[in-house]
Amino acid sequence: MKPVNDTFLRALKREQTDYTPLWLMRQAGRYLPEYNAVRTRKGSFMALAQDPEAACEVTLQPVERFGLDAAILFSDILTVPDAMGLGLSFVPGKGPVFEHPVQTEEAAAKLFVPDPEERLRYVTDAVRTIRRALDNRVPLIGFSGSPFTLACYMVEGGSSKDFATIKKMMYARPDLLHRILEVNARAVTEYLNAQVRAGAQALQIFDTWGGALADGCFEEFSLRYMKRILEGLIKENEGKRVPVILFTKGGGAWLEAIAESGCDCVGVDWTVNLAQARARTRDAVSLQGNLDPMVLFAGEEAIRREARRVLDSFGETGTGGHVFNLGHGISQHTDPEAVAILADEVHAYSRRYHQRKA
Amino acid sequence: MKPVNDTFLRALKREQTDYTPLWLMRQAGRYLPEYNAVRTRKGSFMALAQDPEAACEVTLQPVERFGLDAAILFSDILTVPDAMGLGLSFVPGKGPVFEHPVQTEEAAAKLFVPDPEERLRYVTDAVRTIRRALDNRVPLIGFSGSPFTLACYMVEGGSSKDFATIKKMMYARPDLLHRILEVNARAVTEYLNAQVRAGAQALQIFDTWGGALADGCFEEFSLRYMKRILEGLIKENEGKRVPVILFTKGGGAWLEAIAESGCDCVGVDWTVNLAQARARTRDAVSLQGNLDPMVLFAGEEAIRREARRVLDSFGETGTGGHVFNLGHGISQHTDPEAVAILADEVHAYSRRYHQRKA
Repeated sequence: MKPVNDTFLRALKREQTDYTPLWLMRQAGRYLPEYNAVRTRKGSFMALAQDPEAACEVTLQPVERFGLDAAILFSDILTVPDAMGLGLSFVPGKGPVFEHPVQTEEAAAKLFVPDPEERLRYVTDAVRTIRRALDNRVPLIGFSGSPFTLACYMVEGGSSKDFATIKKMMYARPDLLHRILEVNARAVTEYLNAQVRAGAQALQIFDTWGGALADGCFEEFSLRYMKRILEGLIKENEGKRVPVILFTKGGGAWLEAIAESGCDCVGVDWTVNLAQARARTRDAVSLQGNLDPMVLFAGEEAIRREARRVLDSFGETGTGGHVFNLGHGISQHTDPEAVAILADEVHAYSRRYHQRKA
Repeated sequence: MKPVNDTFLRALKREQTDYTPLWLMRQAGRYLPEYNAVRTRKGSFMALAQDPEAACEVTLQPVERFGLDAAILFSDILTVPDAMGLGLSFVPGKGPVFEHPVQTEEAAAKLFVPDPEERLRYVTDAVRTIRRALDNRVPLIGFSGSPFTLACYMVEGGSSKDFATIKKMMYARPDLLHRILEVNARAVTEYLNAQVRAGAQALQIFDTWGGALADGCFEEFSLRYMKRILEGLIKENEGKRVPVILFTKGGGAWLEAIAESGCDCVGVDWTVNLAQARARTRDAVSLQGNLDPMVLFAGEEAIRREARRVLDSFGETGTGGHVFNLGHGISQHTDPEAVAILADEVHAYSRRYHQRKA
């Protein structure tokens, strides 16, 4: 019988596992030569993301190379606003750019919830293709950006250092931003449900920019809309619960509130102490994280030491669940060998913390 | 008799005041036309910073225009590594650049503690000139970058998004980074003491990048060296205590530890809830902050509302002390009129929270 590794799903649900499962944000990416080969063949990032066979190929690469415990759909968080007709392109050296930023009442009024099986069919096709190719070896994670994080790009028209445009809107015209976020929340719900129906077995919502918000604003403009998504998501598929991870980079201040959102797992960045995070969330959710991605530049000894430090800080699993990850996406300059060392250390060293639960 | 406004110093020491004092990080800067006039006259940022009369002129501009409660020395945090011979220049569109970054044993071994009255005489001369010109109207704040924040620029050779070079050093060669930080801590101590002897009445240490560190690393590589500085600082001058503010941007996770460092005041960014911060630090220090600088783009109503929200979240002063500030430096694109509105609101609305202390 072929081996089925569901360690990741069980850790998310705080069930007993033999070791701490591991995946890496942005694990299918430019640090891998085999990824770059496919990327070059396809010509552009979006051409790659929009080709289900190619997306499947790069999704599987890191899983097979490193023996990771989950695959994550190869795609981009900006597919949803692109499907709303905002005109996404990637400008070298500048990052994502929207041809039609959403900065006025008129632009906000034009936003709509795209039908995922129509305008984002390439994504659900990729999910179906990947599930077939994975053949249950490891679970597949679907994902989306959070409504606020998507709005950052939609309102700013691209990346931003200080979020001046969206924050001006937030403080001066909160009603207008709420209207945008409301559409985004419905669009993301539909999008994630379509991924689940296509076969995604777990979901992650990337709230990459929620941590840029002031206290109070985070709850009102980011967390609130992630909660709405959680309320609207399909809870089970193929007879199994579909766990959801919320990852707010820089969200350590609001851990308790995030843990009470209805999610199964909270992703935390490297500034968070995992023991304290467990205490603050009272093991009511599992935790994902939180190695500093820069550790992967420091050589084998440091990688093994810092991986152990993360595992030690979580400690005995007990009633908690831990998914090992980086605190942010892996850098494109990472040596793949560093990831192999990390996977080896996490899988070997973590076994001491997985005792039979009471 | 000329008026002496020592509200800022008294708030730092948690003494009774009539209202909440206000100053703004980077208050003397490019958002002010009168600043730009002087800057143009001097030709470059460093030429301005190195001319005590001109530095004095721009230091006083925002104090006089807005009736702020403190002046802060016009200078740059990178004067210290520049005085170590690393060759600082400011490249348009790129920010600060060091000609000789510190990335090897040899480069680290060459670092030394500059004599502030010799190599940084322009700074202490500026402090003396400003004190004379202020004539005790409001107190003068001296400042420095933290040892870790200075090291970020020294090791990276300039600004960085991911701090790959210094973090690689930190994880792979912690001994080498500790050597650099040790010199920096001694240099900053000498530098701040020279500012105090020249007349600075309060000090702020800007730990701009401490928040980029992983839990555990912050304490070991940033806070530890700020504590050393605090131990070595002159405690009193002109018969008065010289209070010290530590500001770690993104340091909310470590508030308790920062508050126990020996500082008088902890600066916090806008992600921190002031009521929770008071509870966590048990009013053992005063707090500075924490308006989102982007509020200043949102018009009068929003500015007044958000300023009140910050004051409300601190609440009754009681045994605590509050200095109103932004959670980060003011943006160069800010309309000066927005600052006038903010100063008016803070000064007027805060009076309700300043009752006689028990």
